[in-house]
Order: sequence, then structure tokens, then C-alpha cells
Amino acid sequence: MAYSIYLSGEIHTDWREQIKQGILEHQLDIEVFSPVTDHDSSDHVGDEILGKEENSFWKDHKAAKINAIRTNTYISRADIVVVRFGEKYKQWNAAFDAGIATGLGIPLIVMHAPELTHPLKEVDAAAMAVTETPGQVVEILKYISQP
Amino acid sequence: MAYSIYLSGEIHTDWREQIKQGILEHQLDIEVFSPVTDHDSSDHVGDEILGKEENSFWKDHKAAKINAIRTNTYISRADIVVVRFGEKYKQWNAAFDAGIATGLGIPLIVMHAPELTHPLKEVDAAAMAVTETPGQVVEILKYISQP
Amino acid sequence: MAYSIYLSGEIHTDWREQIKQGILEHQLDIEVFSPVTDHDSSDHVGDEILGKEENSFWKDHKAAKINAIRTNTYISRADIVVVRFGEKYKQWNAAFDAGIATGLGIPLIVMHAPELTHPLKEVDAAAMAVTETPGQVVEILKYISQP
Amino acid sequence: MAYSIYLSGEIHTDWREQIKQGILEHQLDIEVFSPVTDHDSSDHVGDEILGKEENSFWKDHKAAKINAIRTNTYISRADIVVVRFGEKYKQWNAAFDAGIATGLGIPLIVMHAPELTHPLKEVDAAAMAVTETPGQVVEILKYISQP
Amino acid sequence: MAYSIYLSGEIHTDWREQIKQGILEHQLDIEVFSPVTDHDSSDHVGDEILGKEENSFWKDHKAAKINAIRTNTYISRADIVVVRFGEKYKQWNAAFDAGIATGLGIPLIVMHAPELTHPLKEVDAAAMAVTETPGQVVEILKYISQP
Amino acid sequence: MAYSIYLSGEIHTDWREQIKQGILEHQLDIEVFSPVTDHDSSDHVGDEILGKEENSFWKDHKAAKINAIRTNTYISRADIVVVRFGEKYKQWNAAFDAGIATGLGIPLIVMHAPELTHPLKEVDAAAMAVTETPGQVVEILKYISQP
Amino acid sequence: MAYSIYLSGEIHTDWREQIKQGILEHQLDIEVFSPVTDHDSSDHVGDEILGKEENSFWKDHKAAKINAIRTNTYISRADIVVVRFGEKYKQWNAAFDAGIATGLGIPLIVMHAPELTHPLKEVDAAAMAVTETPGQVVEILKYISQP
Amino acid sequence: MAYSIYLSGEIHTDWREQIKQGILEHQLDIEVFSPVTDHDSSDHVGDEILGKEENSFWKDHKAAKINAIRTNTYISRADIVVVRFGEKYKQWNAAFDAGIATGLGIPLIVMHAPELTHPLKEVDAAAMAVTETPGQVVEILKYISQP
Repeated sequence: MAYSIYLSGEIHTDWREQIKQGILEHQLDIEVFSPVTDHDSSDHVGDEILGKEENSFWKDHKAAKINAIRTNTYISRADIVVVRFGEKYKQWNAAFDAGIATGLGIPLIVMHAPELTHPLKEVDAAAMAVTETPGQVVEILKYISQP
Repeated sequence: MAYSIYLSGEIHTDWREQIKQGILEHQLDIEVFSPVTDHDSSDHVGDEILGKEENSFWKDHKAAKINAIRTNTYISRADIVVVRFGEKYKQWNAAFDAGIATGLGIPLIVMHAPELTHPLKEVDAAAMAVTETPGQVVEILKYISQP
Repeated sequence: MAYSIYLSGEIHTDWREQIKQGILEHQLDIEVFSPVTDHDSSDHVGDEILGKEENSFWKDHKAAKINAIRTNTYISRADIVVVRFGEKYKQWNAAFDAGIATGLGIPLIVMHAPELTHPLKEVDAAAMAVTETPGQVVEILKYISQP
Repeated sequence: MAYSIYLSGEIHTDWREQIKQGILEHQLDIEVFSPVTDHDSSDHVGDEILGKEENSFWKDHKAAKINAIRTNTYISRADIVVVRFGEKYKQWNAAFDAGIATGLGIPLIVMHAPELTHPLKEVDAAAMAVTETPGQVVEILKYISQP
Repeated sequence: MAYSIYLSGEIHTDWREQIKQGILEHQLDIEVFSPVTDHDSSDHVGDEILGKEENSFWKDHKAAKINAIRTNTYISRADIVVVRFGEKYKQWNAAFDAGIATGLGIPLIVMHAPELTHPLKEVDAAAMAVTETPGQVVEILKYISQP
Repeated sequence: MAYSIYLSGEIHTDWREQIKQGILEHQLDIEVFSPVTDHDSSDHVGDEILGKEENSFWKDHKAAKINAIRTNTYISRADIVVVRFGEKYKQWNAAFDAGIATGLGIPLIVMHAPELTHPLKEVDAAAMAVTETPGQVVEILKYISQP
Repeated sequence: MAYSIYLSGEIHTDWREQIKQGILEHQLDIEVFSPVTDHDSSDHVGDEILGKEENSFWKDHKAAKINAIRTNTYISRADIVVVRFGEKYKQWNAAFDAGIATGLGIPLIVMHAPELTHPLKEVDAAAMAVTETPGQVVEILKYISQP
Repeated sequence: MAYSIYLSGEIHTDWREQIKQGILEHQLDIEVFSPVTDHDSSDHVGDEILGKEENSFWKDHKAAKINAIRTNTYISRADIVVVRFGEKYKQWNAAFDAGIATGLGIPLIVMHAPELTHPLKEVDAAAMAVTETPGQVVEILKYISQP
């Protein structure tokens, strides 16, 4: 009866850890997938494995594709995709992941501060729940996991 | 032998008009779909048709869903989705549309300034072409439309 | 750029005519599909074409299946399914059609009086718009049809 | 060789328990999924986790969507969807679930009193079996589970 | 609003002509697809186009595959597949086509004499209508084609 | 690395047992699905669980649908569908199952005597292997199961 | 009743023209799609539209992706994919296109000299017809296009 | 969290063993699928199980189809398809497998010497990574497998 969830988006706070902690505490039967969240490692993986690129476009390209092997496999395997938007940075990859989940018909839970409501309205409109905190996500997981 | 294309993203410059103009000039057999690009109309459509909301979250929600009827129908009907990222604003809906196209397996052409390469690397990595100008998109459409 | 819509549900008022009238008035490029709305004809079609049944269960069964050839073909061909719930009768077939559209990933517009909100909350939650009148549906169609 | 079944619909009698009991008694290798059947908890979950809503429409909306994360995941994971219609209430969500299963191509077993045959004819016509009692469902499960 | 139908099965009576005649008479907007019904031509097409085979297995194989290009394309393009079983011959290809339509989720209308009910029960159970005469098929097409 | 296979068709010889025996002997990691092969039980299951029918058509109908819950679930779960045609009876359900597998894109192994080649040419043409004996099926399973 | 065909593979002989000529002569209702067959233009299109690359890998990469927008759109739109293998060059793109068609479930007609049978056995095994000349392809198209 | 990978293509060097060895060394939770890599056994399997063919085309045909039962099942079950092109032979089956994976939407990792870049540009353009050595594939698998 387990669910699988994928945690996409912001990588500068410990929100993934809070959700995993909540899952543990409530002994929920939920498998958690994440992208590689080490920023440096993720940026340089193309060059490091496949060889240096002069052009930063192709450096980014190779890294992004290797990361996509992981992220797309995990997104398509998830029952629920949780996407968190932080206050800083462009975070287009978070919105991109939310779109992939939507295109695949996988339910979405979004997490962001109320200030971001207007620019995120299209993403929110496709979501099954719009949360503000990891605790709310855990509450939802707990609710849908009851026997 | 016609193609259908959907033009997603930035709504503050005339890039859509430039692409349509190029299609006309080269007499390409290409049908062009776009979102409603009138910003005000698009923001208020929920309230205006379905009734006022106190809460701005629900106002945005209703508007975004009505817009999504159009955008999702057109995206899923397109052979190619072109997404332009401008210099300003969050533009998460542009990245979201790119994700939907990717989730549906529809080829993507991205357009943005080189400065945006790093934050857009995941989107670029999923694209069939990364362009900087409407003229380049027209050139691609012309090339793939030759008899 | 045309849309196709399927009008499901309540057959005792002229809401379908009002929507068709609005489409004509605004010269919208929209194709309209409907079930057979003649109640008697629809109830007896099984017996009449395929032969009498003693048992009313099988009589209903044969009629419902012939009707389903039409309704399922049209639902799966529609870009948008509009479902209206009236004040009377069980109308399980309306909710059933809404479910089929949802299972197929086709966007839903629901129409019902506010009094029915609570028992219809699951259907409403899956809809892109919840309306009360045919005029609102026409407004949405007009909005999403602008060039 | 196990089957997974989802038990949708009426929540005021113990029919789900009877089916589970029958599965246990006959030692059938069948996994059973259900919605949250606590009526109060299910109605208030949106407000309780995501915050109070003034407007009862949005209160219902948020609750229905959280419930849909569970129900849609389980329906799409089931080999068979069993839907029971009771004598009381609108039960549009039961017909809606039956429609979702049909749209997804998942076989349906319906359970209802003979008096409901006429208004349920469309749902019955899409079903692989129309039963009246939990015991009949158990008999079917037992029959299809033999080695 | 047209339907497309594919007429599969028995090729020794004029049932296809009767259906086409009925469509003409009632001016139904229905496109009719059929297999190649010239028995000889259909049996020898492999040898004739691709070269003689000593072994009759491979002769049949090549012919059947060329025919399948046509039949599978037309079946998958049809809104409705009509399959007629005659009194003679094995007619496994008729049952095979019915299975393909079922696997693709395309509605089926079956036509056969009542004597064949028991051996055809699995095919009949998957059908939306079980008819005995071309006239009944025309009646169904007329019924579902009304405006 | 296991395969799942579904054994469809003829129920009057012990070919299924021979294949299972071969799988055991060669210790192949293969899960075997079958229909209910008790002819009487399969014919009467509708009446017995759901209540007597006067009309033999409906008696067959109810039985066939209950059996289809099992057969369609197992066919769609199988990696390979093996269909055997015996010398006697119409066996349209065997050809029907082969068609369902083909419509779902599941590879087919057919088994029949050489005398049946001509009437089975369409089914054979869709198959990955045409065998005559259970031993050949076991050889294929053994071959594709090697590490 | 028209078919659409995509002509993939070898670009150094006039086989595409011969097939188009045959279609014209026999007045077949068949739409023909092809890749860009101008070798130079196809090799340089990436650099020419999107800007020069130092590294020939990325030059090829950009060109191949622009060409794939056309080829993948046309392959997925075709009813039949015809792939010709010539005597010279690696022609991996021909086999790659044949694989894409197979992955998408689109029927394949292969054309090659008998000498290539052994290395092409996997592709041939997935094909509905293995031909040697454009004339044979025209004969098949003529056969499947008869009324 | 395991991945499944399918190793397609060249069978004359020990690259598959190197990848398996790397997986073992790094204790990656990865299931590895391969075709039958014994060249002789793979070439003769059709004749050996199903009976001798005079004509080498049909001999190859029968063998290729039996092999395709395994390869297509494993490709469609894989999260990632790795395809290696060696220096010798036509290797059309490698490009064909890459196409099947692409048609099914399964991510591709390609491995080949830089000299093959130009003739493989279409395959490379569809890949998530283009590698030269088994060690690089192991590095990618290790990177995407980190917790």
C-alpha cells in the first residue's frame, strides 16, 4: 500500500530532511526519491565523467542530461511529485519538473510562501495541494496513508 | 504536411508577431497556437466569468484553470512547442509549459539570451534546439518545411 | 483552431440549446457533440433494434450499450467535456461521464446550482471550471477562442 | 498471482468489512484499497491541514483534492474496481470513480439493489459484473483466484 | 460528426454491401473501411509481389502480413469495428480482429446467427451490441448518427 | 529477470501441464497464468454467482464477463501470451485472446498442427514463433531465460 | 481512406522518386513524407542557423536534433514507414528510424538487396514486408489501397 | 531505488562484463539485462527449436523473432538502455534497439569511439550521454545511484 514520492526543487534548506523525518516518525510506508542535491557535483558531473568542455553551454548540457536520467526515471516512477519553490533563484527546473509530472498525469503537491502565489498560479492550478511547510506535506502523506 | 506550433512564454515583446510574420513571408504551411497574451484579461478572467473571490489565491486559481483549458489543449495538439524566456519576471509558467511538452513527448525549441544558460540548463537539455532570436526559429521552421 | 466539446448530463432543460445559441452568436469555431437526448428513444433503443427483453435489466443493458457507442466516441473525441447536473433525478450517468473524461485526461467544465456543491465536490475538484449557467460556459468558450 | 481491488462508494454500511472478511476466510491473495471512509475526517481534511476557508466551496475543494491523491492512485493501481451504490444520498463520487476506472480501462464490478437498475444502467453496462451483495463479490474473487 | 467503421469477417455473402447501401439510403455521414475481400488475390498477394515461396507456411505468412498493413491501419483508425461470423469455415481472423479492437479499446458490434452464441460468448461479452442482420447494424448506425 | 506467460486456448489436452513441467525441470524463473480450465465451472459461473437466467444468451454473457476479469487481467500482465489451437471446436476465444495480446502489443507464441496453417495465417503472421508442441515452447522459454 | 507513408534511409539513389512516380501513375491517395535529403544542407543546418561550433561532435549534434524535429514528427504521423538500406555507408540512422517506428507500433516495410539479409535480420523480423525494389513497394501500396 | 539497464549492441569485446564488474565493485543496486550474446546459438535458434529452413532468409527470420521476444521484453522493462557500437560490422541491430528505446521514451546511453561520431549523430542526438568506455557508463550509474 506504499506510496512513492519525488521531492523536486529548492536545494538550499533542509525541507527534504524534514519530510523524511516526518515519514519516519509516523512510520509511513513511503519511498522517497530525490535529485542529486549536491550543487557542485551536479553542475560538474558532465565534464567530470565525459570530459571537459570549453563552452559552458555544452558543459551545462552534458551535466543536465546525466541528471535528467535520474530525475526523469524517478518522476515517472513516483505516485506523487512534491515541488518546493524557495525565495531565491530562478528555479526554472522546479517548474519544469512540475510540468513533466503534469504531462505524465502524476499528482502534484506544491510548496511555497504565499508571496509567490501570483507567479506560480499556473503550477498551483495543476496541483492537488498547495502547501507552505514540510509539516503540511507530512500531514497529507499521513492522512492518505491511514489504513 | 503542415506543422502546428505552440508559442509559450514571455508576453512583453513582439516575438510571437515576428515568428508569424516570418511564416507568412516564407509561405510556410504552419498553424500557430498561442495563449491569451493580454495580461490583464488573463489575470481577471476567473473573477469576471465565474464571480469575484475575496481571496487572491482563489482568484488566481480560477483564472489559471480557465487559461489552462486553452494552453493544455493547444500544447497537446502541437507538433512543436516553442518557449521563450525573457530577461524579467519569474516566468515559471514558461518552464512549466516546457515540462508539460516534455512529459507529453512533444519536441521543444527554447529561446533565451545566453546569460540565462545556466539556470535554464535542464530545459535546454530537453530541447531540440536552443535559439536566441525569433529569426532563428523561423529559419528552423523553414528548414524543416522544405518539400 | 477549433475546439470540440461534448455536452453531457441533464436533459430536461434547454441548456444545450443555449450554449449552441451562444456559440452561433459569437461565431465561435466550436463543434458540439451531445448524447441522444430523446429520453424515450434512448430508453427503448435496445429492444427496438435488437429485439424485446422480458427482463428489464437486460432491456436497459442493451439500450445503455448502444448509447455508449455514441457517448464514448464523442467524449474521447472532445477537447472539453461540459457536464450539467440538474436539481432532480439521480443523474449518475452525468457523474459517470465526468469520470470517463477524467480517466481519459480530458478537461472538464461542470455546471450546477450552488446547493449541489457538497455532494459534487469530487467532480468539481477535477474540473477546470465550475459554472452555474450556460452563459458562463459560453463566456469561457469565447475567452479561450479569441485569436 | 494476486489481484488488487479498490472498493469505492457507499460508506454507511459494513460492506467493505464483509468483503475483507470473505477474502480472509477463503485465504485469497488479494490486496484491498479503500478511500478514507471516516466521513468527518474526509470532509475537513483540507481545512485542517491547509488552513481554514470562509467559503464552503473552497473548503470542499481542498478536501476533495487531498482525497483524490489517495483515490486516484489506488484506482489506477487496482486490477478491479468495485463500486457500491447504497439506497441513500446522491453518491455522485461513486459514479465518478466508476467513470474514472472505465476511462482508464480497469474492469468494474458494481453492487446495488435491483431498484437502482434503471438510473444506473450506464454504469452497469460498463461493468464486468453487477452484484447485489458483498457475498457475490467474494464469490467472484474466489472464482477468479483459483489456481 | 462522422463515424468511421471497419467491417471485419465473413467474405462470402453481401453483408458489407447491405450495410453500405443502408448508409447511403439514410444518408449517414459514415466512412466504411474493409479488408481486401477478394479471396484469391488476398491469398496470393505475398507470392505475387514479393516472389514465390516453396513452403506454403511462408507463402501464407507473406500474404497475411501485407494484408495486416491494411487491416491494422483501418482497425486502429475506426470508431467502431463490426465483425460478422458466418456459418462456415474457421473464421479465426474474424475473432482475431475482434480481439485487436478490444485490445485497442475500440467498440465492437458483432453479427452472427443465434446458433453461434455459445462458442462466441467471449467475443459477444466484449461487444457493445450483438446483432443478427446487416439491417440491425444500419439501425444502430442511424440511431447513433442522429443530430 | 523472470518472465510472466499466459497460456490461452485449447483446454482438452494437458499441454499446459507439459509446459509447467518443463519450466520446473529446467528451473526457469517463469510465472504461469491460465484461464479457469474447468469447462463446466467456467460455463455456469454467471448463473451460479449472480442468479439464474432463462435466456441462454445472457447466461453465457454473465459467465463470459466474469471469466474476462481473470483472463484480461492476466493477459495484460503477461510478457508473453502462448495460444494453442486444438483440432476440434471453433476456439474463437483462442483467436480472440491472440487479438487482445496483439492489440496490447504483447508478444505472441502460437501452437497448432501444420494442418491449421492456412486458416490461422493472420494469427501466425502476428506471432513471434509458431510452434507445434509444448516442448518447443519450453525450449523457447529456456533459450530466452539463459543468463 | 488515404495512407501516409514516411520514406527513411538511403539518399544516394532515386528510390523515393520512383515510389512517388508509382503513386502518381496509379493515382493512389497516399501522402509521402521524407527527411531532408540534401546531404550538405542536412549536415550543416545546426551551424548555419544556430551558430558555428568548433567541436564537430556538437556541430553534428545540433544538426541532428533539428533534423529530428522533422523526422520524428513525420514518422509518428505515418501509417507506414518504409526504410531502404543501400549497399554503402553505415546507415545507422536508417536502422534507428526503423527502431523508432517499431517502438511506436507503426508498421514497417524494409527495402534492401538480398546480400544484406543476415545483418538486417532483426529489422526484417519486425517488418510487415521485406522488399528489394521501389516497384514492389508501389505494388504493396496499390494492393492495400484498392477500394 | 534500483535501476534496470539493458546492454545492447556489440558482442565481441567484454564491455558488458566490465560494466557488471563496476556495478559489483561499487555495490550499485542495478539489475542488468542483456541479449543472448552467444553468436552461434543466437543465429541458429530458429532452426534448432522450430525446424530447419532451406531458405536462409526464413532461417534468420525465425531466429531473429525468438531473440526479439527476449530483447523487446527487456528493453521495455529497462530504465536505461546502453548501446555500444564497435569498430566492425554493420551493427544495424544496435541502432535498431536504440530506435526502439527512443520510440518507447526510454533514456539512452551510447558508447562508441570518437571516429564514429558522424555516422552516429542521429543516435547520439537522442541520447542522454555519449560515452567512449565502460568505465564512463559505470561512473554515470554510480552518480545517479547515490542516495
